[in-house]
Amino acid sequence: MIIGLVQKLKNDFEIDFKRPELLDEAFTHASYVNEHPKEHLKYYERIEFLGDAVMQLCVSEYLYRRYPGMSEGKLSRLRAAMVCEDSFSKFAKECNFDEYIRLGKGEEKANARQRPALLCDIFEAFIGALYQDQGKKAVEEFIAKVVFPKLDLGWFDHLLDHKTELQELLQEKGEVTITYDEVADLGPEHDKMYTMAVSADGKVLGTGSGHSKKEAEQVAANAALKSLK
Amino acid sequence: MIIGLVQKLKNDFEIDFKRPELLDEAFTHASYVNEHPKEHLKYYERIEFLGDAVMQLCVSEYLYRRYPGMSEGKLSRLRAAMVCEDSFSKFAKECNFDEYIRLGKGEEKANARQRPALLCDIFEAFIGALYQDQGKKAVEEFIAKVVFPKLDLGWFDHLLDHKTELQELLQEKGEVTITYDEVADLGPEHDKMYTMAVSADGKVLGTGSGHSKKEAEQVAANAALKSLK
Repeated sequence: MIIGLVQKLKNDFEIDFKRPELLDEAFTHASYVNEHPKEHLKYYERIEFLGDAVMQLCVSEYLYRRYPGMSEGKLSRLRAAMVCEDSFSKFAKECNFDEYIRLGKGEEKANARQRPALLCDIFEAFIGALYQDQGKKAVEEFIAKVVFPKLDLGWFDHLLDHKTELQELLQEKGEVTITYDEVADLGPEHDKMYTMAVSADGKVLGTGSGHSKKEAEQVAANAALKSLK
Repeated sequence: MIIGLVQKLKNDFEIDFKRPELLDEAFTHASYVNEHPKEHLKYYERIEFLGDAVMQLCVSEYLYRRYPGMSEGKLSRLRAAMVCEDSFSKFAKECNFDEYIRLGKGEEKANARQRPALLCDIFEAFIGALYQDQGKKAVEEFIAKVVFPKLDLGWFDHLLDHKTELQELLQEKGEVTITYDEVADLGPEHDKMYTMAVSADGKVLGTGSGHSKKEAEQVAANAALKSLK
């Protein structure tokens, strides 16, 4: 069994694994299995196959509900940015999953333990193990701690239209007039910095600055969203 | 509301939709919405986004459990063949979903109703609606009727290794000796037809023919699998 992992999941995420052998499978690379032929170990690829699909659905469902007015195209782009090697490898590192991977000696020497592709695989494999052990709700609770907060931390802001999101949120409770007003434009002509304020029925909800009015409006809308949530 | 669809789903699949408005959304194309601006309709793209992810997980999970010894690579290829435009459009036609799509006049004239890409979208959108209305179990029951039987009907045989599947099934209950023996080779040298028999511990389980011994063995293994199930 992989030492310390069960306890770590309990401490960090209050996850109590019933079948730790699923974790062994999820954190074992093929190179390790090949070096230990007598142990009849499983490596993570099959369980990763499952975990990948679980992540696709959980993230899709979350985005679908969180952004009720977002177009399919935007939802797809946002999902693609969240469900990808770059993001998953960062989540795996954040959870210190890299410390628990069982690797063959050759791969270890080649520093595979820090390779984003492997870290991404391990993250998906862990999700597959958690799903099999405790079902979809447990996965949702885990990614509510590890994945979804990144939306509020701005990881995917380049894909989000905060103005639309704010409009949808405010108009859920009926008609409201949203206005964006210039508060200031500072700096020289070639490098101007604009500050915009967003108001709902005349009440200022947030301000933001940027090198264009458009950018400043997005920052203001995001500030308003944060203050409202 | 789309006439007849709720009743049809009840009759054909014993599905009792609680929120038929989800079906309206799933079966309405953007071109129809554009032609009826006053009705404030939703079109299927967002719900299709959800349904696509639901299908990915349900099919992945089914394959993962049904083929416990299949490699990740094979699972992925099999899933890709099942979760694709070609397959989904056929499932949609089989369910007569094409009859219920709400299309704009231009699209109707262009015969979009029979376009595989649209039929595929509608199938995914329906899955998204069913998932939202009744959860994952209801989707699994539906695709157990419409999708999974295609595996036994041979739709994906070109991707399946029946010999491996048979071996896994037989060895679940302990060690067993599986042998393939030539029963006959008929026809001229350049167009020979081989017949092979597969046996477990000496007992013949099935026979099969093909233009190579390898092909005949696969057919024999598939026959054995069918007789055992």
